[in-house]
Amino acid sequence: MKGIILFGHGARNPEYIEPFKRIRAVVMGQKPGVPVEVGFLELTQPPLEASIECLVSLGVNEIKVVPIFFAPGRHVLKDLPQLIGHAMERFPGVEFEVAACVGEVDNVIAAMAAHAVAGA
Amino acid sequence: MKGIILFGHGARNPEYIEPFKRIRAVVMGQKPGVPVEVGFLELTQPPLEASIECLVSLGVNEIKVVPIFFAPGRHVLKDLPQLIGHAMERFPGVEFEVAACVGEVDNVIAAMAAHAVAGA
Repeated sequence: MKGIILFGHGARNPEYIEPFKRIRAVVMGQKPGVPVEVGFLELTQPPLEASIECLVSLGVNEIKVVPIFFAPGRHVLKDLPQLIGHAMERFPGVEFEVAACVGEVDNVIAAMAAHAVAGA
Repeated sequence: MKGIILFGHGARNPEYIEPFKRIRAVVMGQKPGVPVEVGFLELTQPPLEASIECLVSLGVNEIKVVPIFFAPGRHVLKDLPQLIGHAMERFPGVEFEVAACVGEVDNVIAAMAAHAVAGA
């Protein structure tokens, strides 16, 4: 079974989690059978490790991690592979895939540009 | 004349500026007559102040600042108004407007969700 994790940096600001919840709700509406969790590197709960554990406990054995980042920096290129490496050791029967950062995706760029243009 | 600034936090990673350049290119394609600059709080060049100065020197007197942030935290709610306050003192003839963060916009949420769902 497939599962999705929306992976973010985390922040002190409690509002930070809102877009993650909204993305999760849209995904759940479109794929009711696919478990979706949010998971963070730091500051915001839950940590990525906990989200992986949660999906595995639901029977998920293919996890797609989607970085909700504008660009792949240290957190996506170094911290995330390290976290996934640990998870692969802990759950050897689970496959992991890391998607492109949302900020690299044409349709996301187009939607951000449309917002910038609105009213200009 | 109107102008747009895509405002980001800034990062050590030089790739961080790429989505900003791409958004800028899309906006320029759609609004060839509207000057568009990128500007950052820290780490990435140019700083917001320099982008404002640049637009004003082009004759812009209405600046829309678009926060390329997932959610409004301290940087958008405190640092940005402070920077804009300084700019308003320096350029009293210029009007400033701050748009919603891209992560608050329905179509951006939908595009991120579509990316998360792809292939799942």
